[in-house]
Amino acid sequence: MPGKNAFYAQSGGVTAVINASACGVIETARANRGKIGKVFAGRNGIIGALREDLIDTSKESKANIRGLLTTPSGAFGSCRHKLKSLENNRAEYERLIEVFKAHDIGYFFYNGGGDSADTCLKVSQLSESMGYPLQAIHVPKTIDNDLPLTDNCPGFGSVAKYIAISTKEAAMDVASMCETSTKVFILEAMGRHAGWIAAAGGLAAEKEGDAPHIILFPEIAFDREKFLAKVERTVKKQGFCVIVASEGAQYADGTFLAESGLKDAFGHSQLGGLAPTLAQMVKDELGYKYHWAVADYLQRSARHIASQTDVDQAYALGKAAVEFALDGDNAVMPCIVRGKGKRYTWSIGKAPLDKVANVEKMMPRNYITRDGFGITQAGRDYLAPLIVGEAYPEYRKGMPQYVTLKNAPVPRKLKKRFSI
Amino acid sequence: MPGKNAFYAQSGGVTAVINASACGVIETARANRGKIGKVFAGRNGIIGALREDLIDTSKESKANIRGLLTTPSGAFGSCRHKLKSLENNRAEYERLIEVFKAHDIGYFFYNGGGDSADTCLKVSQLSESMGYPLQAIHVPKTIDNDLPLTDNCPGFGSVAKYIAISTKEAAMDVASMCETSTKVFILEAMGRHAGWIAAAGGLAAEKEGDAPHIILFPEIAFDREKFLAKVERTVKKQGFCVIVASEGAQYADGTFLAESGLKDAFGHSQLGGLAPTLAQMVKDELGYKYHWAVADYLQRSARHIASQTDVDQAYALGKAAVEFALDGDNAVMPCIVRGKGKRYTWSIGKAPLDKVANVEKMMPRNYITRDGFGITQAGRDYLAPLIVGEAYPEYRKGMPQYVTLKNAPVPRKLKKRFSI
Repeated sequence: MPGKNAFYAQSGGVTAVINASACGVIETARANRGKIGKVFAGRNGIIGALREDLIDTSKESKANIRGLLTTPSGAFGSCRHKLKSLENNRAEYERLIEVFKAHDIGYFFYNGGGDSADTCLKVSQLSESMGYPLQAIHVPKTIDNDLPLTDNCPGFGSVAKYIAISTKEAAMDVASMCETSTKVFILEAMGRHAGWIAAAGGLAAEKEGDAPHIILFPEIAFDREKFLAKVERTVKKQGFCVIVASEGAQYADGTFLAESGLKDAFGHSQLGGLAPTLAQMVKDELGYKYHWAVADYLQRSARHIASQTDVDQAYALGKAAVEFALDGDNAVMPCIVRGKGKRYTWSIGKAPLDKVANVEKMMPRNYITRDGFGITQAGRDYLAPLIVGEAYPEYRKGMPQYVTLKNAPVPRKLKKRFSI
Repeated sequence: MPGKNAFYAQSGGVTAVINASACGVIETARANRGKIGKVFAGRNGIIGALREDLIDTSKESKANIRGLLTTPSGAFGSCRHKLKSLENNRAEYERLIEVFKAHDIGYFFYNGGGDSADTCLKVSQLSESMGYPLQAIHVPKTIDNDLPLTDNCPGFGSVAKYIAISTKEAAMDVASMCETSTKVFILEAMGRHAGWIAAAGGLAAEKEGDAPHIILFPEIAFDREKFLAKVERTVKKQGFCVIVASEGAQYADGTFLAESGLKDAFGHSQLGGLAPTLAQMVKDELGYKYHWAVADYLQRSARHIASQTDVDQAYALGKAAVEFALDGDNAVMPCIVRGKGKRYTWSIGKAPLDKVANVEKMMPRNYITRDGFGITQAGRDYLAPLIVGEAYPEYRKGMPQYVTLKNAPVPRKLKKRFSI
């Protein structure tokens, strides 16, 4: 008799490697068929469970599941639905348990960031009190790299690699044209609260004076005069200035630079983005010719240049989640533990979920240079190993071959519908 | 006794593969040392010649010259300096001849787009009339793909590949989140006058209904109502809508969408970019959550995902330029000739420069669907082979290894300085 079924869902913003974690979960469950039944995935994340809209992953071929390793985005769909506190929305939690019970689900694998770690913990607690115990394991994922207890988060290494390479390539472009053309180039990177992604742009520099010349972090209050002075100094010295700016860059009072008052022809307030705001500032005050780029989703979906280290870790965490479950664990999260040696090594550790949920890990101040515009050697030492290795997908006719799953529905068992 | 020296310069916007053409020129010249002397490069393009600021490429190692094959940007620097007509600036042309004469330069290889083809032609004509004949060969290069007589232009295939892959990856991201998050995604592509680059986004679609759902070309007058109706229809049918927009998208009266009246907090007119303008339009009229990306220089410098076909052609054109010169040709441009068979093949042809200069090749109307929002099978057939093959650079510690040349100066011979 096979064991209980498992439920797996992807949560929040997707990444280049979240499907690698899904691959790790499903392949490991399949390898333990005697102990775990089928893996059902939530269509569009947790709302798939609430709606009893489950996907039967056992209908997918071995090759397609393997293909998840090299496929970006969320293969089963993801969502931004955050479950409220138990007090405020007990009905949602009870519905989850009801659906899990109906489908004989004994394992809950939730693949997401801080919010989903919190949900995962609550589901574990409530199921216990409702007399239908579930083993709830959180699989970490977030390009923001802001989860505690894990050395880094899957998804981040690949964005970091994309931003580092893009910064290097664009900087070379600007350097070769700056004599008669663009003097200032701004790349806007994601990261609303923490500057990890923008910091990775710093890996483009190999020696003093190399681009990027300025990194803007949300952690450091933006000082307009200091910024403009550094831009001018850099252009005078290097001939050009490359800036990597975190979208969360803000003034000391917490106002985002991106919200600094653009209006369209009709007087509507324009969320114009940080990069054009900075560019305009440079143009108005210093008169330099500028260009800017906003990578937006391109950076987090860039599976074509994913970090091998990141892919390996994402897979290993999915695998470990199932192994922890088989070992009887509950309310834990597998995490990345960095080795102590000089050469980078990593292994899988185990973190209790109550220590993970709702804690945000910011950039340590000692990773940022004293002037607030760059990364230190300590920051570089932390970031550099995470982008190592090129996990290329296969190509056909010049395009990467990403899999599309069948995503066959599991027949519904409950009469009650649930609207969310 | 070695032959006369050669002068090589890069002109205009740089690309992921212009250095591959440089590699073709220099390696072929080195292989013909008995017939051609040294290759001198203009520092920052043609202004290097005007300033007698030449780079001695013979000082570079074989490995570094080979490294140009996988290095983006302009290794010797480029510029946007356009020589005016002979009548208006005879002094500049005469200065060029003077510098070439002083350095015993008998070959002029100019690597650029339409403007530089024109300059190349004039230099050839003037040198003749000034009694110091030069063989002037133009090496085509432009991501805009708008040169006549050549089937395509080096630099374009790699941008096309970047845009096609980025569109595909971002679309997968949006698809997996659209149930609860972003419904409309806009990627702004380069192409001020012609829609070739945006068109390449169409290669992301494999079947009817696939993203991108809308492509905006400069060739098709923008119709706000028709555009919004198509966005709404697409979101209702597919759940989301992906748009690839050429920066040159414009209204029937020639006004660029990107210039449609954004103002900053100080009332300054804001060149905000097309993507945010479209996003705001979608938000205001349809209320959909949106995201947008502007790839800007990232697209033309993305050597990490360059097209092998593009790299091969860029190299072959540089090589052919030197071979043409050795055959005694003058005022010509090697070009790409597409084979007639069903399977894509290409060979090198020869185009007279007076037929190339100042002619812009737009997208043929039959490459664009009748509704003006997509590419036809004919367009796809043209574009698809150009992105085939992945010409990966080497990596070390997770970063591509691009070469930096020594760029040693050639000692000056002229007393006169020339200010430009």
